[in-house]
Amino acid sequence: MINPFFKNNGPFKINDILSFLNLSNTNIYKSDLIYDVADLNSAKKNELTFFHSKKYSLIANKTKASYCLTLKSLKDYLPKECKKIFVDNVLLSISEITSKFYPDAINDNFDDTVKNINELKFKNRIKHGLNILVGDNVKIGTNCSIGHNSIIEKNVIIGSNCSIGSNTIIRNTIIEDNVNILDGCVIGKKGFGFLPNNKKNIRYPHIGIVIIGENSEIGCGSTIDRGSMSNTVIGKNTFLDNQVHIAHNNKIGDNCIIAGQVGIAGSSRLGNNVMIGGQAGISGHLIVGNNVQIGGGSGVIKDIPDNTRVIGYPSRDLRQFLKDYK
Amino acid sequence: MINPFFKNNGPFKINDILSFLNLSNTNIYKSDLIYDVADLNSAKKNELTFFHSKKYSLIANKTKASYCLTLKSLKDYLPKECKKIFVDNVLLSISEITSKFYPDAINDNFDDTVKNINELKFKNRIKHGLNILVGDNVKIGTNCSIGHNSIIEKNVIIGSNCSIGSNTIIRNTIIEDNVNILDGCVIGKKGFGFLPNNKKNIRYPHIGIVIIGENSEIGCGSTIDRGSMSNTVIGKNTFLDNQVHIAHNNKIGDNCIIAGQVGIAGSSRLGNNVMIGGQAGISGHLIVGNNVQIGGGSGVIKDIPDNTRVIGYPSRDLRQFLKDYK
Amino acid sequence: MINPFFKNNGPFKINDILSFLNLSNTNIYKSDLIYDVADLNSAKKNELTFFHSKKYSLIANKTKASYCLTLKSLKDYLPKECKKIFVDNVLLSISEITSKFYPDAINDNFDDTVKNINELKFKNRIKHGLNILVGDNVKIGTNCSIGHNSIIEKNVIIGSNCSIGSNTIIRNTIIEDNVNILDGCVIGKKGFGFLPNNKKNIRYPHIGIVIIGENSEIGCGSTIDRGSMSNTVIGKNTFLDNQVHIAHNNKIGDNCIIAGQVGIAGSSRLGNNVMIGGQAGISGHLIVGNNVQIGGGSGVIKDIPDNTRVIGYPSRDLRQFLKDYK
Repeated sequence: MINPFFKNNGPFKINDILSFLNLSNTNIYKSDLIYDVADLNSAKKNELTFFHSKKYSLIANKTKASYCLTLKSLKDYLPKECKKIFVDNVLLSISEITSKFYPDAINDNFDDTVKNINELKFKNRIKHGLNILVGDNVKIGTNCSIGHNSIIEKNVIIGSNCSIGSNTIIRNTIIEDNVNILDGCVIGKKGFGFLPNNKKNIRYPHIGIVIIGENSEIGCGSTIDRGSMSNTVIGKNTFLDNQVHIAHNNKIGDNCIIAGQVGIAGSSRLGNNVMIGGQAGISGHLIVGNNVQIGGGSGVIKDIPDNTRVIGYPSRDLRQFLKDYK
Repeated sequence: MINPFFKNNGPFKINDILSFLNLSNTNIYKSDLIYDVADLNSAKKNELTFFHSKKYSLIANKTKASYCLTLKSLKDYLPKECKKIFVDNVLLSISEITSKFYPDAINDNFDDTVKNINELKFKNRIKHGLNILVGDNVKIGTNCSIGHNSIIEKNVIIGSNCSIGSNTIIRNTIIEDNVNILDGCVIGKKGFGFLPNNKKNIRYPHIGIVIIGENSEIGCGSTIDRGSMSNTVIGKNTFLDNQVHIAHNNKIGDNCIIAGQVGIAGSSRLGNNVMIGGQAGISGHLIVGNNVQIGGGSGVIKDIPDNTRVIGYPSRDLRQFLKDYK
Repeated sequence: MINPFFKNNGPFKINDILSFLNLSNTNIYKSDLIYDVADLNSAKKNELTFFHSKKYSLIANKTKASYCLTLKSLKDYLPKECKKIFVDNVLLSISEITSKFYPDAINDNFDDTVKNINELKFKNRIKHGLNILVGDNVKIGTNCSIGHNSIIEKNVIIGSNCSIGSNTIIRNTIIEDNVNILDGCVIGKKGFGFLPNNKKNIRYPHIGIVIIGENSEIGCGSTIDRGSMSNTVIGKNTFLDNQVHIAHNNKIGDNCIIAGQVGIAGSSRLGNNVMIGGQAGISGHLIVGNNVQIGGGSGVIKDIPDNTRVIGYPSRDLRQFLKDYK
């Protein structure tokens, strides 16, 4: 289970799931119980996964899921023992089913469980400013400080020796030891993921969380969205400057340095020791290697191998760029 | 009248307006009453408009305004029946006159009419967090929620089924039904419009408002400025990601998707079904058609026709761009 | 002394400083007192400076400092009368010594000296909103207003006729007369400066402050970091739009206009009458002349002479750019 916070309302009978999707051929599997939903990679026995694009056929071929929502045209990529459920719109259907398992993960209204810290056990344990609100299911280690007007919503674990600034909002997040989060951040909100639909887009649940590794720092006014089907991860000793945006599902390695106003679109994976100059942007679903340096203002739209220095829009080898613009 | 919120202090006698501008030839029109100020396009009979650049001569030719502040060199572009008032600096003069009509629109100090929601009728009607402030002349529909520390300043109308996040500030804005505004936004502030002037720039009034269409969503930390002489409009079912900036007077269509950190400079017009990748920028006074896709990080400095995909800085046809960078 | 706010814990005996650095040859200078630390340029007699790169050899040659932390290989660039202290890592050592002089400048935890404005003398002198916190050592001139939920932390001087928005945080800052700071800003936080170090980066103290000149305006959601060894300066009558980021040590001239989402990396110097279009970025340690215009979205990576118009990434002459992209 990727998220220790959202309550799983399962298991559901496969029969109920099929009827929820308005599928009639429900007799074959009716007694099976489905315990969770997950992506192709992490789904296990007795869980439901989804497979909507040939792009993922190699992973699909190895899935351990007992059931898979998919298209008829894709069925041969899946293992024999994985039971296929054919739907017209795979993403829409998995979104609907995920909402049944995790109804809390779709609605990001403000947390109505919060109380002023002065009414809570944290009052004397934490060095804290004024007007601080803390929600249910929050754990905070020793020697932490929280600034004025900050809101630690429900489902947050903060390690020891952490400093949270003022006017910052955190939810659905695990923060390891020695982390500094500066003022005016919003961390752990749902990502910008939805199914476009004329008249009314369909929001899908975000059941991932945010994890921030030890010794890291997050600059003022930054936003880090939680993941949809996996977590958003900031590695250890990774420093973000002000006004950085980290979208959902990104995994950023250790010892990275990310300057002001950088934006990283969803589901990319950055290695360790990556340095990114100010205002650079990284597209979604990319892999950036270890020891990579990306110049300020660059636009990265392709994978970058280890030990590479790139710059430009679209980004290219630094030496080539400097030659071009002499 | 474009703005239901700002009180119009008019009508003023034309005589008074002229003397306010230190113009002496005041005898001819002294008994006329001027009821409002407006741009060339929307001004009506008994209203005052302004015309400062040949660029707008086609619109000037059709204005219905009874009076127009202009330059001597431009007088022949205006209709005969429109009475010309010649000034040295048209924008400065219209700014001064607009301030007389709408003195509240120039000063964006904090709203001192707000009260804690617990002292207001909304207390029991709205699902609300803690420390929420609400100003005069605010209307909120049914089934709405407002997060902690948010400030709904005066002159805001919120429809039904809306969710406002925490730490968000809204003023001079109409929000239709089913809209989500996430945390840390500032919506409805005056735009970045002023007359540059050595020693002390001159701020002109912003008498427009912000209108957000139904089913739309505004991401965390976004800013949407209200218009100067017209409104800033976000269409229906249009989704903005985090840290987006929409400057004054922009009109954005329906079903648009605008990714993180995008910035749209003032007075541009976007069609329906426009998709904009992260960190793209759109210059001021442009027209972007329907069904346009703009790649992440692009810089748009020219109009874009319908059904076009562009990318790059400056943006160009997507296929050309991909060919260039193979 | 560049900063009127941070308490200088000196003087220290040179002997103590050497032993703090684990240097054993401490007999020669043991009775000397060191009163302050400063950069090569501003250090005076009886003060300690540092010199770590040949790049600064011309300035090093003229330093008035009595002592200098440096490398053996650089010793000949320094004046004879300046006493050299050889260390392996100059920046790390000066950072450690600066922390001894200014321990308050390394920790940016929330200000625990703040009180609600209603408990302070400002209560009746300032037009103020609700839930405002003000720290120790704050001075505010006449005819100012402060919006809701704002935090004026310790070490802030605000002139007369200033307007501070709501949800804004200010510390270690001097604001001159007639300045407007809009909503949701964070001003005066430590810059993004540290010594990268595997496992745990080392934060160095930021003993500079932010100075904002008269008649200036700072847009919503902007961040201005204070300097490390010098101040961050915004000139007079300079206007910043929303979501602008000004990093540490930048000096920006008078009458500048900086549009939305611009980012200026650290230690650059901009002249007067500089206009910068939206989303442009300026690299660190550059000099931008007077009367320069920088197009929206540009990436400036070289110095720009006076009276120049540039655009592009990397930025180049405007006419050339327009020719290239016809």
